[in-house]
Amino acid sequence: MVRARRNHVDVLTTDMLVEDVHFTRALSTPEDVGHRALHVNLSDVAAMGAEPRFALLSLGLPPSLEAAWVTRMVGALLASARASGVFLIGGNISRAPIIFVDVTVSGAAKPRHVLRRSGARPGDELYVSGAVGAAAAGLAWLQSQSRATRDTSGGDAAPAHGVLAEHDDVMAAVTRYRRPDARVALGVQVGRNKAASACMDTSDGLADALRQLAAASGIGVRVETAAVPVAPAVAQVAGMTGSDLSALIWSGGEDYELLFAVPRRARRRFLHATGRAGLPMVTRIGVCTRELDVLMVDQAGAGSALPDGFAHFAPSAPSGAD
Amino acid sequence: MVRARRNHVDVLTTDMLVEDVHFTRALSTPEDVGHRALHVNLSDVAAMGAEPRFALLSLGLPPSLEAAWVTRMVGALLASARASGVFLIGGNISRAPIIFVDVTVSGAAKPRHVLRRSGARPGDELYVSGAVGAAAAGLAWLQSQSRATRDTSGGDAAPAHGVLAEHDDVMAAVTRYRRPDARVALGVQVGRNKAASACMDTSDGLADALRQLAAASGIGVRVETAAVPVAPAVAQVAGMTGSDLSALIWSGGEDYELLFAVPRRARRRFLHATGRAGLPMVTRIGVCTRELDVLMVDQAGAGSALPDGFAHFAPSAPSGAD
Repeated sequence: MVRARRNHVDVLTTDMLVEDVHFTRALSTPEDVGHRALHVNLSDVAAMGAEPRFALLSLGLPPSLEAAWVTRMVGALLASARASGVFLIGGNISRAPIIFVDVTVSGAAKPRHVLRRSGARPGDELYVSGAVGAAAAGLAWLQSQSRATRDTSGGDAAPAHGVLAEHDDVMAAVTRYRRPDARVALGVQVGRNKAASACMDTSDGLADALRQLAAASGIGVRVETAAVPVAPAVAQVAGMTGSDLSALIWSGGEDYELLFAVPRRARRRFLHATGRAGLPMVTRIGVCTRELDVLMVDQAGAGSALPDGFAHFAPSAPSGAD
Repeated sequence: MVRARRNHVDVLTTDMLVEDVHFTRALSTPEDVGHRALHVNLSDVAAMGAEPRFALLSLGLPPSLEAAWVTRMVGALLASARASGVFLIGGNISRAPIIFVDVTVSGAAKPRHVLRRSGARPGDELYVSGAVGAAAAGLAWLQSQSRATRDTSGGDAAPAHGVLAEHDDVMAAVTRYRRPDARVALGVQVGRNKAASACMDTSDGLADALRQLAAASGIGVRVETAAVPVAPAVAQVAGMTGSDLSALIWSGGEDYELLFAVPRRARRRFLHATGRAGLPMVTRIGVCTRELDVLMVDQAGAGSALPDGFAHFAPSAPSGAD
């Protein structure tokens, strides 16, 4: 039972992690899963410019699962909630053949501060927070380590948690995958300053976010490939693991960065609002167009279609499952 | 994005149906599952005396599931939502090895009208709506039909939907199992009239509801066994299927009736509020006591402990799974 904030609207969102679809117990600790299950929802709330307030937790648990896994997962979820000012106010547990962690978060925003996917207009500039590809690179690296461990240990899946990355960048990418950090403060700042015409998160990859924002707004986009801020580990991991560089950048997902459309007249307000201490960097990556194509443009000015985003039901969808 | 009702609080609840735990595709149609997934949540909202307003739907779907199953299930959920004045405002779909349908519902109530589990006091009378055991009897009958069909057809699980019950009572019990009808109007009426000190639904059985209400309120209860309104099909199905009569009545669950504690000074108000046209009958079944025991009392006045309720992780938990 909660009391709505006066003069605010509630935003409600739900997202879940399913074992062997969004995570595996081999590559994520219980704490990783608890943290991530909350943050994938915080990211949706942030993309609406709202402050997250309350969470509900719906758990599916196999009877064979050790109690300690659940305690650690829920403990981490609670700690992450506390750190974000979110109260876990209820939930539900059911028996299930696999683990799933389904979280609903409600947030609050003043009606005029709410960000939507659908407000972008031709001429608006596109900005993305942080850097893209880190989570996908982190996952690809974990998977390659897990394969290597299995190969040398004769088939048994060994947890990769203890394996040390040689490079800080790769370690940071692994952390980004395991413990994504929803851009809550950034979304709230941009919403409060009415500094964007549209916003969505990159949970299913940058290409998907661009496409969805374009479709919802009835516009096209042109993204300058060279302008896209790629996480430093991405090229390195692609080289080390043989992963497709372009897929890591465009389709990887799970970075939980925010994509904004910013009207030119709001540019200064946007850069001021996002320039505050503690907020992630934002980078201009392209522009919204009247033509409905969703294009990436190389430095010579040649445009081509964006690669596909994460497809939940594709036969070989990239995912946390190894 | 929703606007809270002025001078109301929001109540939020989440509950899910997991394939082979809460339902099987052999014994429930997609429409049954969609309707039930909503109503198990409406029942929680009703037990708080709140009016349901918005729903979120989180779906786990195996890639092999035919699209028609999903369309029919979601269609029924939407129809049930419309019929209850509830708007489905969002959701999420994920790949999963089994079907699960996780619903979150938010409702609204004036703060002084909210019903809780914890308000019962010694001397308050206990009332239950409708009749108990119907859903459990309906499920037991469906399972026995399904076994019979399998036995005669040589092992293949055949859907029991088409099998005609000989008796209207049994048919009504089957409907109660497949399409429970949350007591929303009843909960709202009792809440508005401040006619109960505590309330909870019987989703996990009458025994469980009595125990939980007693524990939350710090009281005991004495239930007169002879006063409990048992659905007409229960004895019949117990005879036909060899099910344990007492288990069907006390532990069956899934009836989604409401259990109320009513202070003596509010009795007349309670009976007036619940006597309105269209509301289910309520029956006085016992009384709250200062002693903390949760007892059933036979007609000779001898007390004994209540049978166990539905245990989600018990090895042989009664469930929709055959």
